[in-house]
Amino acid sequence: MPISRFYKLYLSPNRKYVKVLKNLLGFVPGNLSLYRLAFRHKSVAQNIRKGVKNSNERLEFLGDAVLGSVVAEVLFKLYPYEDEGFLTELRSKIVSRNNLNQLARKLGFDKLIEFDPKILANGRQGSLLGDAFEALVGAVYLDKGYDFTRHFLVNHIIKAHIDIHTLEQTETNFKSKLIEWCQRHGKDITFELTTNLEGESAKLFTIQVNVDGEILGSGKEFSKKNAEKLAAEKACAALGI
Amino acid sequence: MPISRFYKLYLSPNRKYVKVLKNLLGFVPGNLSLYRLAFRHKSVAQNIRKGVKNSNERLEFLGDAVLGSVVAEVLFKLYPYEDEGFLTELRSKIVSRNNLNQLARKLGFDKLIEFDPKILANGRQGSLLGDAFEALVGAVYLDKGYDFTRHFLVNHIIKAHIDIHTLEQTETNFKSKLIEWCQRHGKDITFELTTNLEGESAKLFTIQVNVDGEILGSGKEFSKKNAEKLAAEKACAALGI
Repeated sequence: MPISRFYKLYLSPNRKYVKVLKNLLGFVPGNLSLYRLAFRHKSVAQNIRKGVKNSNERLEFLGDAVLGSVVAEVLFKLYPYEDEGFLTELRSKIVSRNNLNQLARKLGFDKLIEFDPKILANGRQGSLLGDAFEALVGAVYLDKGYDFTRHFLVNHIIKAHIDIHTLEQTETNFKSKLIEWCQRHGKDITFELTTNLEGESAKLFTIQVNVDGEILGSGKEFSKKNAEKLAAEKACAALGI
Repeated sequence: MPISRFYKLYLSPNRKYVKVLKNLLGFVPGNLSLYRLAFRHKSVAQNIRKGVKNSNERLEFLGDAVLGSVVAEVLFKLYPYEDEGFLTELRSKIVSRNNLNQLARKLGFDKLIEFDPKILANGRQGSLLGDAFEALVGAVYLDKGYDFTRHFLVNHIIKAHIDIHTLEQTETNFKSKLIEWCQRHGKDITFELTTNLEGESAKLFTIQVNVDGEILGSGKEFSKKNAEKLAAEKACAALGI
């Protein structure tokens, strides 16, 4: 074991945090402040300069891009005979907020993220966990470079936690996802068919999703089912689920 | 000069193409077939397997992601005190179809791209050049890896051809861009205020953009100016300008 690694793990004043990260990531991190930043939600960020907060949002921007690039390459090589439409759709399922939220929860991010618990008061945890995952990717990239990050993501995250072939076959069902979420959080949900506007085709259906009295999304399609689907998708996005 | 490089440049049967690429890229390419693929538009692609064409579209998917990641890092480091909203917006200006089309034209891609000239008949060259630029980034990445591609993009493309600080201050004016394009291609253009649907706020304005009798975009906003802007932006996207 190199001496710097030994120092970090056993002697440094941050050795406890280093060990937590090593267990999570599978490697000994270099620049600890990057990782601390990745886990700092904007609700607890401080101003470091006029109008600039030290939250994980900038790292999230960077990590989102690096993750997108790594996943693009994985899919490009995994599916040599599929076209770019297929690749784009599958990638968006893999990096969807929902999927990244689940992944981050499985990895135990909820114990690491610093945030103001008040923001969870209304049950809208939103994309807190998934955002932190992207920020972490940004931190690993700045700390260790692209090839290391790619190796980490492919071997430690994608192979271990993401079932690409199942996602490939899943059509995201926003309606049932939304209903499930409302049941879990004790919210009333209704799908309402609203009357068409004058001048609109009688074949068009407009459906509004109403959660605890608040309209969270609406969809206009030529079938009720598709209108519901669209409305539910918008409501899911509004709730960050 | 290593012998393989000498062979490629002076002896190989592809030496002419290698020299063209070297002049364009500033380095001697490895796997030539990747670069040929990057310059092959789908209009001249052949089926290589049932339903699979050997066009540049898959490489474009990959290159788009790699380019996005490199530009994200450049901006992240160039603007340490700007938030992710600023970074996202500036990146989308840099990698906009319009900007990449211009860049590829400047680099002389029009002489390298293989495409069916019929697709240019109606003046809609669209994103042919910009798409090929992204595909080229994908080719360089597969041929040489991330760090090489990043170095190539930063030093050979971004520093030489992209004025980030000017883009930062440019607010894209889609309306004037669209009018200019129509004048250049001899098309009629009108912006039409359409009547509001019943039940909509009287304060809402809906504007349709009509190019040679075809509605290419519409926008609904609380001011005529913003509705026009939105409609023009959609029409620009539809025309690939």
